[in-house]
Formats: sequence, C-alpha cells, structure tokens
Amino acid sequence: MKAAILHGKHELTVEAVPDAVLQAPGDAVVRVVVAGICGTDLHGYNGLPGPVTGPRCGHEFVGVVEDVGTEVSTLRPGMMVVAPFNFADGTCAACQAGLPSACAAGGMFGVDGDGAQAEAVRVPFADANLVAVPVDENDERLSSLLALTDTMATGLHAVRTGRVAPGSSVAVLGDGPVGMCAALAAREAGADRIILVGRHEARLGKGREFGATDTFLARGPESAAESIDFVRAATQGRGADVVVECGGGPQTQNTAFAVCRTGGTVCVMGSPPIGDVTPVFFRGITLAGGLTPARAYLPDLVERVLAGTLAPGSIFEKEVALDDIVSGYEVMAARTATKVLVRP
Amino acid sequence: MKAAILHGKHELTVEAVPDAVLQAPGDAVVRVVVAGICGTDLHGYNGLPGPVTGPRCGHEFVGVVEDVGTEVSTLRPGMMVVAPFNFADGTCAACQAGLPSACAAGGMFGVDGDGAQAEAVRVPFADANLVAVPVDENDERLSSLLALTDTMATGLHAVRTGRVAPGSSVAVLGDGPVGMCAALAAREAGADRIILVGRHEARLGKGREFGATDTFLARGPESAAESIDFVRAATQGRGADVVVECGGGPQTQNTAFAVCRTGGTVCVMGSPPIGDVTPVFFRGITLAGGLTPARAYLPDLVERVLAGTLAPGSIFEKEVALDDIVSGYEVMAARTATKVLVRP
Repeated sequence: MKAAILHGKHELTVEAVPDAVLQAPGDAVVRVVVAGICGTDLHGYNGLPGPVTGPRCGHEFVGVVEDVGTEVSTLRPGMMVVAPFNFADGTCAACQAGLPSACAAGGMFGVDGDGAQAEAVRVPFADANLVAVPVDENDERLSSLLALTDTMATGLHAVRTGRVAPGSSVAVLGDGPVGMCAALAAREAGADRIILVGRHEARLGKGREFGATDTFLARGPESAAESIDFVRAATQGRGADVVVECGGGPQTQNTAFAVCRTGGTVCVMGSPPIGDVTPVFFRGITLAGGLTPARAYLPDLVERVLAGTLAPGSIFEKEVALDDIVSGYEVMAARTATKVLVRP
Repeated sequence: MKAAILHGKHELTVEAVPDAVLQAPGDAVVRVVVAGICGTDLHGYNGLPGPVTGPRCGHEFVGVVEDVGTEVSTLRPGMMVVAPFNFADGTCAACQAGLPSACAAGGMFGVDGDGAQAEAVRVPFADANLVAVPVDENDERLSSLLALTDTMATGLHAVRTGRVAPGSSVAVLGDGPVGMCAALAAREAGADRIILVGRHEARLGKGREFGATDTFLARGPESAAESIDFVRAATQGRGADVVVECGGGPQTQNTAFAVCRTGGTVCVMGSPPIGDVTPVFFRGITLAGGLTPARAYLPDLVERVLAGTLAPGSIFEKEVALDDIVSGYEVMAARTATKVLVRP
C-alpha cells in the first residue's frame, strides 16, 4: 500500500510500505476514505519540535473496515468508521475516567502506530476506538465527520474543561482549525461573547461564521499588547471568563493569562503549559484543557453531524489526492488553506 | 504602641512604634486582642524567600474597633471584628468577582500595611474587610475565629476550587495548619477518603481529629515515592480526585501531580506553581487553588464557629504574650507547636 513518509524537514514522499495487517485479536484494518492534515503534522514537516517526527504521518481519518481480529465484536468489514486521533485500550483507569487521551497503553496514529495519510491503517483496540457511522463514501458530511477526529473534539474539550456556560465570555487565541472549532463549540454552549484573536484576515472571517462575535487581527508577537487591550475592551475591562489558548508556546500562554478575568479559566489546547503559570496562585485562575479525549466526545459529535446541527467540515478548504499530499502540506504551511483533506 | 519588628534572620524584637492611626476616611484602627503566627512569618524569620520580610510582621488578627474614619458606615468603636489576612477595596472587578485576594488596591497586613503582631492595626477599606462578631474578649471561640482569618479560609478555598464533593477522595500534602484545615473542610464537604501526608507523627494524629481518614508519615524528600504509593493504594490505584498541596515548592508540587488521578484537580495553596505542570496537558489534570479570598468566606465561616459546628481553634497549641513572641516563633520553627496564638 501507499503511505506518506517523512524523511526529514520538507522531505515528505508517498511511497510503498508494507500493507496494514492485523497484529492482535483486537485489531481492525481500516481502508482510509478521507484523512486530514493537522497543524501538528506541519511541525514535523517544518523540522520543528512536536510529536510528529515521521516516518509515518497523519492521525485524522474516516474509513471503511476491511478486516477485524478474532476478538473484535462490534465491527464488521464494510462498515464506515470514524477514528479518534489518539487510540486507547478502553479499559484502564484513565479510559474509565473518561480520558482515553491519557491511556498508557494507547497512543497517536502516525506516532505510535500506522499513519492516517495512507491507504490503510491498523487500529489497535478497535472496539474501543472506532465509531461506526451509517454513511457511504460519497456522503457530503464526510468532511465534517473527519473534522471531529481531532480539531472539533479539541475545541469541544476546551469548552467543557473551561466550563463555558450560557452567557460566558470566551477568548480564543489562534485562528487555526482548533480555534475555529473552539468558537463553534463555545457558540453551541451558549457563550455570549466569543472573541477570536488571529493573524489572518480571511480566517477571522471564517471565525465569524463559526461563531466569533468579535475578531482581532494581530500582526505578530509585537501585537500582544493590542490583543490584550482588545479582549479587555470587549469584556468591560474584566477579561474573558474562559480563554482558549490554541497557539502553543509560552508567549501565547502569557497572553492567555493576561486576557483572562480574575477567577477565570485558561485552557491550554496547543501544547503543554511551559510559561509562567503563577497567575493560578495570585489571580485565582484555573488552568485546564489539554489533550482531548476525542473518543469520549465522538458519539455525541457524530450524532450532531448526522442530524445536521453541527457542520465543521468547512474548515477543510482544499482537497488533494494522497499522491499529491505535499501540495496540501505546502498550502497549509503557507497559510493559504486552513486545513486540507486528503483522499487516498 | 508595641509591635513585633523583624530586622533580619532570627532578629525579631518587640519595640515601640508610632501608634496606628486613621490615614483615610475609610480606615479603622483595631486594637488587637489575639494574633496568629503563620508559616509565612517563619519564612521571613528564617531568612527564607517569601512575602514576609519585615519590618512589620503578622497578618492574622481578631480585635476591637478603636476608631473609624468619616466614611466608615458599618463599624463603631467597641465592636469585636475578624479581619481577613489580605485586605481589599471591595469595589474593583476582582472583588466583585469574589476574589478580593487579587484586588490591585489591596494587600496583606504586615506587608502592605501595619502588622498584626502588634497592639493595634490600621485597617484600610474597613467596611469592606472587617466582619463584626458578637463575642467578648474572653470568649473561648476567639482562637477558632482567629483560625478563620487565613488557615481555615485557605483550607476551604482548596476544597472549593478543587470542587470536592460528597464521595470525593482528597489527598492533603502537608501537615501544617493549612493541611489540618483542608482536611476539616474536606470532611465538611463530604469527602469519603481524606489522606494526609506529613512529616510529624503528632500532627498526623491531630489531622485525624480534623478529618483525615488515612495518614502517612513521610520522612523527607526521600519518602516521595512511598508517599505516592500510599496515596495510590488508598485510592484503588487511581490517585485522589483532588490533591491539596500545602507544602510549597516544586518537589511537593510534583508529588501532587503524581498522586492525582487522571482528570483530577491539583490545588496549590502553599506557593505559586513553579514546577512541571505538563500533566495539565497530558493527564487532563486541572490546576487550581491559590491565594484564598478570605473575606469572601468569612461570613459563612464565622457563622459556623458561632453556631458551634466548626472549631478549628485547636490548631493553636501554644499561647504567648506579645512581649514573648520570639518564643512563639521558636516553637513553631522547631515544629513543637503547630501554630501559636499571640495576645498583646
């Protein structure tokens, strides 16, 4: 089969690899119908630190079950399935606590197992991870289902851990796919003001479609003070009840605390907190967020997509064939497409 | 009047200082009836970093109003009052958000104003800070009221920000006064298991009186691994739902994350988080706690003390006269008394 292989910075090729096969009785092999390119993939592609360093790439996919192990009971070949980007065993204490994202036996597709930017993927603990969806390969909701696997689940996790409630003010720092989905999830949760801070005029426009009520175009690190002023002005000087930090890195995290109201919550969604978190102590700010337990959210999210009440699929602004995946990475790296869908 | 003055490490003297006087129309002058010595005071006394560096010392007191400014409307000379250790203006956004502890115009007695280990204290924004209590100077509940000003309010803040609920498991790291009060607050909140980790056998015994269901005697930093094993064993291997970190410092904070269940909450009560907080991201742990908004909790706490349903006063194991305050610092530094009450 074919798969995207990262050999080093900007050295991404599509080449023949051994076919995905069952290795354990709980495995399934899934033929990929659509896969996503994630900002995390770009880190690896650009030679920057991050979980994705190759050789396999991709952790977002929707596909069709091709084969199942002897212990798989809920899936049959031919079923269309949505996978969470991070698989888990479904049985450990973390999984039982609703956080499969922290499962010690689990991992991330492409990092701890087959990559999704490929023709097929072996899925460990298939019963615990795959969610069957009654749609066919040409369903127009496939892009929205694909958006659930990582970005929408992450946006929702921010809103849940931030305890966004009707009337809340929410500041979203970062106008990438997660920021879009966080705005959408905040709107669904009844937030009153949703303030999106980003660096791309076109994305801010899309952000308004996704629920942002106020947008601010930051020009880079030198705009941090203006961003802070903007969010404060939009919240009667108080700061936002909940801040969703999607940028990653200490500077955005510092800005997140600066725009959070005293006693509010900062949700770090882009990368682990490594900056100054002393406002937790001095300003009573709760620090939450983190890796989304995507699988825990999938059933509800899938139901909403199928019902037509949730449609985050428009974060995909370009579609490429697997053979042409490099062009997908390039437009995302150039920020000319928010997110790219890959069709093997 | 007389006040305790810290001139440097172990150089604490009681000497004559200018009388506390009204300086603003919202001020009150309070004659101190009982004051406390806090662990924070010990840091300064021992020449260690911390907010208390002298010259004035002490931030816990109960006293009698002697004089009020022209704008004070709720207090009259002769009233017995309890003060929060940190005063605030009562009107700013932080105060309105229920976090007077983050009031920019506020501060801590002894640090940003008169110290409580003195015959009298000037209290800024008196209406917003002082809570009148209908007791006399000989009331046996004075020690419990004094405990509310800082330690009990801090223990309660841990339980509130940690969202301790009926059935919760709570690990308390540190067997000082705050740890005791956190155990007591956890019991009041209906926690099922309250696991106290400390370094002093006698204090662990007191901790059981305050609500601890399980106690572990740690012998120092080398006992960290055993402490972790103990808490995990007491929680079916999962870790505690809520961890109250009262020790301060990165090592205890690391232990706090290690004994917290995936998806649980770590409350830092002793000092700002400065260690590795990446479990917030990878294990879905919420980081909360911080400086208690004591004034916000005082009315409810005072009511419970007066009703006889809350009696944290036994954390005071020794009483000294102001002139003899150095002996109080010495027994606390030697850990032969959990906490000392000072009577000017």
